[in-house]
Amino acid sequence: MIKVGVYGATGYTGIELVRILRGHPQAELAFLTTEPFEGQSFSDIFPGAAELQLCSTGQADAGAVDAIFTCVPHTIAMELIKRIYRPGLKVIDLSADFRFANPGQYKQWYGVEHLAPELLSKSVYGLPEFFREEITGYEIVANPGCYPTCALLALGPLAEEGLLQDSEVIIDAKTGVSGAGRKASLNTHYVEVNENLVPYKMGRTHSHVGEMELILSRLAGRELKVAFTPQLVPLSRGILSTIYVRTGQSAPRLWELYSRTYAEEPFVKVLEQGTPAQLAYVRYTNDCVIGVHDMGTDGLVMISAAVDNLVKGAAGQAVQNFNILFGLDETAGLRTASGRI
Amino acid sequence: MIKVGVYGATGYTGIELVRILRGHPQAELAFLTTEPFEGQSFSDIFPGAAELQLCSTGQADAGAVDAIFTCVPHTIAMELIKRIYRPGLKVIDLSADFRFANPGQYKQWYGVEHLAPELLSKSVYGLPEFFREEITGYEIVANPGCYPTCALLALGPLAEEGLLQDSEVIIDAKTGVSGAGRKASLNTHYVEVNENLVPYKMGRTHSHVGEMELILSRLAGRELKVAFTPQLVPLSRGILSTIYVRTGQSAPRLWELYSRTYAEEPFVKVLEQGTPAQLAYVRYTNDCVIGVHDMGTDGLVMISAAVDNLVKGAAGQAVQNFNILFGLDETAGLRTASGRI
Amino acid sequence: MIKVGVYGATGYTGIELVRILRGHPQAELAFLTTEPFEGQSFSDIFPGAAELQLCSTGQADAGAVDAIFTCVPHTIAMELIKRIYRPGLKVIDLSADFRFANPGQYKQWYGVEHLAPELLSKSVYGLPEFFREEITGYEIVANPGCYPTCALLALGPLAEEGLLQDSEVIIDAKTGVSGAGRKASLNTHYVEVNENLVPYKMGRTHSHVGEMELILSRLAGRELKVAFTPQLVPLSRGILSTIYVRTGQSAPRLWELYSRTYAEEPFVKVLEQGTPAQLAYVRYTNDCVIGVHDMGTDGLVMISAAVDNLVKGAAGQAVQNFNILFGLDETAGLRTASGRI
Amino acid sequence: MIKVGVYGATGYTGIELVRILRGHPQAELAFLTTEPFEGQSFSDIFPGAAELQLCSTGQADAGAVDAIFTCVPHTIAMELIKRIYRPGLKVIDLSADFRFANPGQYKQWYGVEHLAPELLSKSVYGLPEFFREEITGYEIVANPGCYPTCALLALGPLAEEGLLQDSEVIIDAKTGVSGAGRKASLNTHYVEVNENLVPYKMGRTHSHVGEMELILSRLAGRELKVAFTPQLVPLSRGILSTIYVRTGQSAPRLWELYSRTYAEEPFVKVLEQGTPAQLAYVRYTNDCVIGVHDMGTDGLVMISAAVDNLVKGAAGQAVQNFNILFGLDETAGLRTASGRI
Repeated sequence: MIKVGVYGATGYTGIELVRILRGHPQAELAFLTTEPFEGQSFSDIFPGAAELQLCSTGQADAGAVDAIFTCVPHTIAMELIKRIYRPGLKVIDLSADFRFANPGQYKQWYGVEHLAPELLSKSVYGLPEFFREEITGYEIVANPGCYPTCALLALGPLAEEGLLQDSEVIIDAKTGVSGAGRKASLNTHYVEVNENLVPYKMGRTHSHVGEMELILSRLAGRELKVAFTPQLVPLSRGILSTIYVRTGQSAPRLWELYSRTYAEEPFVKVLEQGTPAQLAYVRYTNDCVIGVHDMGTDGLVMISAAVDNLVKGAAGQAVQNFNILFGLDETAGLRTASGRI
Repeated sequence: MIKVGVYGATGYTGIELVRILRGHPQAELAFLTTEPFEGQSFSDIFPGAAELQLCSTGQADAGAVDAIFTCVPHTIAMELIKRIYRPGLKVIDLSADFRFANPGQYKQWYGVEHLAPELLSKSVYGLPEFFREEITGYEIVANPGCYPTCALLALGPLAEEGLLQDSEVIIDAKTGVSGAGRKASLNTHYVEVNENLVPYKMGRTHSHVGEMELILSRLAGRELKVAFTPQLVPLSRGILSTIYVRTGQSAPRLWELYSRTYAEEPFVKVLEQGTPAQLAYVRYTNDCVIGVHDMGTDGLVMISAAVDNLVKGAAGQAVQNFNILFGLDETAGLRTASGRI
Repeated sequence: MIKVGVYGATGYTGIELVRILRGHPQAELAFLTTEPFEGQSFSDIFPGAAELQLCSTGQADAGAVDAIFTCVPHTIAMELIKRIYRPGLKVIDLSADFRFANPGQYKQWYGVEHLAPELLSKSVYGLPEFFREEITGYEIVANPGCYPTCALLALGPLAEEGLLQDSEVIIDAKTGVSGAGRKASLNTHYVEVNENLVPYKMGRTHSHVGEMELILSRLAGRELKVAFTPQLVPLSRGILSTIYVRTGQSAPRLWELYSRTYAEEPFVKVLEQGTPAQLAYVRYTNDCVIGVHDMGTDGLVMISAAVDNLVKGAAGQAVQNFNILFGLDETAGLRTASGRI
Repeated sequence: MIKVGVYGATGYTGIELVRILRGHPQAELAFLTTEPFEGQSFSDIFPGAAELQLCSTGQADAGAVDAIFTCVPHTIAMELIKRIYRPGLKVIDLSADFRFANPGQYKQWYGVEHLAPELLSKSVYGLPEFFREEITGYEIVANPGCYPTCALLALGPLAEEGLLQDSEVIIDAKTGVSGAGRKASLNTHYVEVNENLVPYKMGRTHSHVGEMELILSRLAGRELKVAFTPQLVPLSRGILSTIYVRTGQSAPRLWELYSRTYAEEPFVKVLEQGTPAQLAYVRYTNDCVIGVHDMGTDGLVMISAAVDNLVKGAAGQAVQNFNILFGLDETAGLRTASGRI
């Protein structure tokens, strides 16, 4: 068994991660940290759940585990990882702190100095469908953000083939409220969310834009920009992106490209032509489903893509990266911990 | 008092219309028709509501009223209106049957022959913000569709100014489930809708595309096409459209255009720069709110617009048209019948 | 016009009150206070709303109005009212501070000393259906709590007739989240509420139990106790109570009693025998609907009752009390400011 | 591997069952039937799901499997089981058809004659927590209804100890909409359910009352009656019951009884004193959580209990019964197919 520790186990991502790891055949939970609920157990906070003890960050013994997952806010993650880093320890970081290889870009999008630039060379962007081989050679995996996971799986094949035009990518994304985290705020108050739809940080202002552009540009071999409209929608989990592109290729040709690209992928499913992605197809699973649609106007194609933001968009993909790092079956623990049929 | 009859009073649009008309200072309800609940009263169907008697279409005496509202399905509306038409009777038709002046276009988008082409010349498209003066001279007002109302208020100023490029208009629209009508279907089943997001009829396949293109082209003085992605979202009422355009003008310039265009409109509100439209701003009101957003990529601008699909998108706008037809204050009955502060 | 001031205008109750007062034919808003949004206007907070200026409590000139509504938390309400009280000023207090004539009982249920016991003799419990005549003679109306409004309208006729047995009243109540106020907390976080049902403060621990028992005992002329199970349900507004009683009378007999008691009431509707109360019947209205049901076991009867917690359970009833205080038609401003047909 | 067939695999219960069986270590799906989607595969109906072929009832080869699950409507189930019954075949019937040993009682509650009375002696009521030993000896397991599962786990310990008084049991139950099945109807329309709460079949009219009374009476050794108020609530899945009893015992004494009774049960969890059951504790799990609460009035105790209606209330419990019938670990396939931590 591989001993793992989870930092930040009582946020939505942490809870989901613990849920998945509990069903993983090769992972053994060594510690779970929390600040708000230190000293309690999971069953204190979620009555009926397992009696897993929760400790503070200080009490966790990172030296006794083979891998850690960090589900703490950005900046706190890099401080923590810097402190406990040792050669051989595998780190899957679910924050944004290691997603930019370049500390200047990190500062540009997150507004703070990177605190562990010396570790950036040991980190890799953990989108398995595009960087699977690279991931195995690194110690720190930067688990992708939820919006970028959905958008990059939808756009990656186009970027790789050189089909994306700069300034011609529009990502209209809708997310459930768990994406905003478990901290109380007026924005996440039930009455404010219910029967409402709320666009926010439109254009190129959301920090996930930086992450999407970075990876798309890497795949394309040249600079690409995207326009992004995130929207808060009255549901608990899930992201649906409707993405508009002009590629010079017809929808059926693009559909073939997607089908070919993802033919062997266990967690990406290209829907039949004409079938759009729905959240119901991915809820509680590690899947991403993708649809390709002719928009009927002068070469415009819409790509619809859906993920569960807490699974493929966070905890599930983290476990997928964990499996890759340890040479396990990439789907271990991810087939049955879900609502998938 | 003006005597009015409502055909189709027990669907979502009909119910909303009755609610508004009950609070209208100059309207008097003469009859309400229904097929499923004939012989019952409103208070039988909605216990606690007023005891308004419901009759069948056959029992309604259209000869005894000054105006009728038709909230019946398309094709049934034109059959009905053809049968009861008489000079002097004012008709506000909430179906699609009189939205196309050209019966060929009607057939193209609705797949059926128009049954009353001789009445088309007596009808006018009832979007008051753009056709207020025309409306007064007609007997039949084609009340706009819900999606078109939202999209046309958002795009009309650009079309009028000649700022829209063909094939450069993308309308990503999200609607609540009342837009699908009150008939039971698997698509509207609570469990299918809840925690789901469902795109449908993407591209140029939804019949509302025809209506939007027709009116935009009329305003622009030349042919325009739009790409449209309607999506079903887990909420009861409301439409939020995020619309992407390239106009050669900056967002602040466009914001000024919108502000100027709608400065005197009682029901269209241009939000401050940077503030996006939300459903909460329009729920239960006859308002449309509009935001203008720089997307940060090469001239792309996003227009966000929201309406309550049952009020401004249907029954409220119908009453606005009724007020225009009868020379009343255009806001009569529409200020307090709502959640507006 | 009657000049009114609203203290606490930006919580859910305050917003609803402003909405109703804006449509009231005889009320004129003189000031609206807020702490969090001082210096802004309603349209800053709720874009698209009216441009009503908001001021701090200190800036409000209570001397210049005929009536005030206090939508501030308990304890803050009595401090405020004590400070601005003057003979002739009409006060409708939506907090709990004047609901108990006896300061000892107030302390028992709210855990704090009453700060204005000298004003208690000037206050009256504002449930119009039972205390309409009394209300006219007082200067301070204690507007009932939301749960008590629903429960007392359902149980009042039984208490008056001496049909309630002590320890035989069980109130199982479900409320929407607006009842918990607009302050952010984990309990009201969308993800915690959605797809969940949460009982809380069961038994005789919720402070509304004190209020219900006080009024029921007054109506009955003897001490009565109730068992109460409040539950948080994933909806924005509304309370449904299912109330179990044994009265020695059959359901049809009780139905007659309710029908007789409420025959002339504009806002209480007794549903036909066998029809249970639903939130849909009262949403956005000042109505309470009541159903009476034989439970089939040895004399047990269930009373179902529903109100909109923000209207009849708060702001609407406050305006009803305002109307009574000023000798207006009791329904003024309450007929059309709603979703009622 | 044990070969199993599922009849009625495309309703909510069937889908959930297929999901669980797919993760079961000893079950192998041999066939799945459906009427509406015959000839298609799961991935046709639920894009992204496994490509499991669906056949009609007639095409299914019941002779080639070791066990069948019947998720078809009552009356259809008994017809089907009668037709395919053979000694040795294990049948887990999720309909109501074999829940009453006495065909007269079946007719009383379901209004139709039993079509296979000769098989009743081969059937057993499949509530493992109370009938585990008996179940192993039978060929047909009548899987309990969703409401009865929740109520019987909450009341069973009291019935066994002789603590229940007739006519003193009140079950106030709230259910998500999946409990109403996947057939479209106005009752399950999103707009009718959302922001609404709907009691129905109150008293002793719901057929689940018959089932609850039958089993409670069996456990108690004498006739017991219950009062029941089912309510439809805007959520997809889950049942919360708040149950009122007078037993002559204090809440702490009852809490000890529950703790003792369920100490070894893998799927029933007695919450700490004062903690009420919530749906969040059981969603997507096979658990039932139970809370015990002193109501503060003369011996009244409230038992709160929650289950996921599709898992412990249907498909999960069916697999639990399957495990018992085949002598497997009772929790096989039920630990990780869920959202449980």
